[in-house]
Amino acid sequence: MFFEGSEKKIEVIVAPQVGSLRELGIDFWQSIVASANAEILSSISNDECDAYLLSESSLFVWKDRFLMLTCGTTTLADAVMLFIDKIGADLIAFASYQRKNEYQSHLQTSSFEQDLHVIRERISGPAFRIGHLDSHHHYIFMTDKPHTTIQGDHTSELLMYHIQGEAADYLRSSNQSAEGVRRILELDEMLPNFRFDDFLFEPFGYSINGINGDKYMTIHITPQEASSYVSFETNLDLAHYPVDIIARLLAILNPGSWDVIGFNSPRSTQGYPEHLCLGSCALETKQGYSLDFSHYQQMCHEVLIPESI
Amino acid sequence: MFFEGSEKKIEVIVAPQVGSLRELGIDFWQSIVASANAEILSSISNDECDAYLLSESSLFVWKDRFLMLTCGTTTLADAVMLFIDKIGADLIAFASYQRKNEYQSHLQTSSFEQDLHVIRERISGPAFRIGHLDSHHHYIFMTDKPHTTIQGDHTSELLMYHIQGEAADYLRSSNQSAEGVRRILELDEMLPNFRFDDFLFEPFGYSINGINGDKYMTIHITPQEASSYVSFETNLDLAHYPVDIIARLLAILNPGSWDVIGFNSPRSTQGYPEHLCLGSCALETKQGYSLDFSHYQQMCHEVLIPESI
Repeated sequence: MFFEGSEKKIEVIVAPQVGSLRELGIDFWQSIVASANAEILSSISNDECDAYLLSESSLFVWKDRFLMLTCGTTTLADAVMLFIDKIGADLIAFASYQRKNEYQSHLQTSSFEQDLHVIRERISGPAFRIGHLDSHHHYIFMTDKPHTTIQGDHTSELLMYHIQGEAADYLRSSNQSAEGVRRILELDEMLPNFRFDDFLFEPFGYSINGINGDKYMTIHITPQEASSYVSFETNLDLAHYPVDIIARLLAILNPGSWDVIGFNSPRSTQGYPEHLCLGSCALETKQGYSLDFSHYQQMCHEVLIPESI
Repeated sequence: MFFEGSEKKIEVIVAPQVGSLRELGIDFWQSIVASANAEILSSISNDECDAYLLSESSLFVWKDRFLMLTCGTTTLADAVMLFIDKIGADLIAFASYQRKNEYQSHLQTSSFEQDLHVIRERISGPAFRIGHLDSHHHYIFMTDKPHTTIQGDHTSELLMYHIQGEAADYLRSSNQSAEGVRRILELDEMLPNFRFDDFLFEPFGYSINGINGDKYMTIHITPQEASSYVSFETNLDLAHYPVDIIARLLAILNPGSWDVIGFNSPRSTQGYPEHLCLGSCALETKQGYSLDFSHYQQMCHEVLIPESI
């Protein structure tokens, strides 16, 4: 029962002429989500943002931008194309498209290179792979139009592989509840002013969106033993946040390895478990985004259990 | 210009009634090799063994067994099926089929699971994956017939990723020669009684077979910077060999990470560069094979260079 937890991600900022993306309405966003082979499960809203919980991950819509994450074998590149066709490529101020290393890339319906080929038929821009193909790596495409990043535009992503220990056991148990997952992840303590929307999948898996003003957070959990994966992402400025959320999540979920990807988000390893940083990369984009990728490995030797096929 | 260096491997031992596999003749073996989408480039022979250098790796044929390694996008499972159909499944005393993690598994024409499905239509046996999907891992299928391993049946495989330094630079240079590669790998010193057959591919890549009595060695080099890979394999009893070949090759090729796979070959890390053993596994088979898999990582932090796509 394999499920690809690793997300594809698209972030788009539109020109002011488009008006508010939030006013495009639920039918518009439903069609975008459907084109990626996902569906909207529920949503929460505040003055700044609509946060949709999807059958496979999340969609956040602000006035001038949206962010969509999808996992499994979803076809997010199709959603990118549909959005561009509906809005018009000229009105896209900035777009980025990301994929991470997948557990079973051969089960995906397309490769990053194939997605790139399709996307570049509409919008141009550089693309990179960061990290070796036989290890954790990250693909990113960004548009090359002139665009000035907004002050305070930070994003941090924490991707955790092979979670172990009490929390991991709970997430794999049959008697879990959404409240129980929120409690075990200490979300109310760490993010006290956030409004949450979460969903527990059958038989396993958990997704949560949280919003507070224009700030968002999202966590997606694929707990299955052989290919466990948990992602956390936020636009909070973690360098100036009172709680060290990344270190706290690492302590709770105890992953064998993890990646941290930051956009305008300075790297810090304070509070991390003892680790080896296998590789890291800093990349400055033309638009002023500073991208950091680091791949960490717990400093321990693992006795591997042969998995019967 | 991507080339998948990682090999698929089949080893088959036949029942005595088959007679000598060496007497099946070149046409027979050419058809087996062709069914995997490879071809025979050259060969060497001695009293015990015929060693064929292939367009994509190697074939060794003894009286009662053969071993075939193929890389790239070859279809080795098809060769397995053709051999079984020609000889008859009842006369297969033992067979194993292996695949390693590939750099770009989505470019392969089949997955291990798909190969397994086809192979199991003819012969039954257990199969395992050792190692996590997001890291180095190894797939192996073995027949489950009763079969007693021969005394002295050792195999050692060394798989090296991301080679660096002087030898790596030479292997990527345009002025290399087969003699130069043999010299840089110190093969004459390490294997003084072996007869060699080697081939330098255009523009890069090198393969060598060596035989000495019933002992073989083979090295395949895919030196391209972004996905460099070097494999060494032998049935020498390395635990009782005067030169520490694995440690010597690691010192020469300086890989960022490497796997050692041993069949009835005790694990030793003497002389290895400073490393973290990320994971290891010992597996005992019903037939008495003891399989060891270990994944090693150099103890250093790598500054990753974004690769433009």
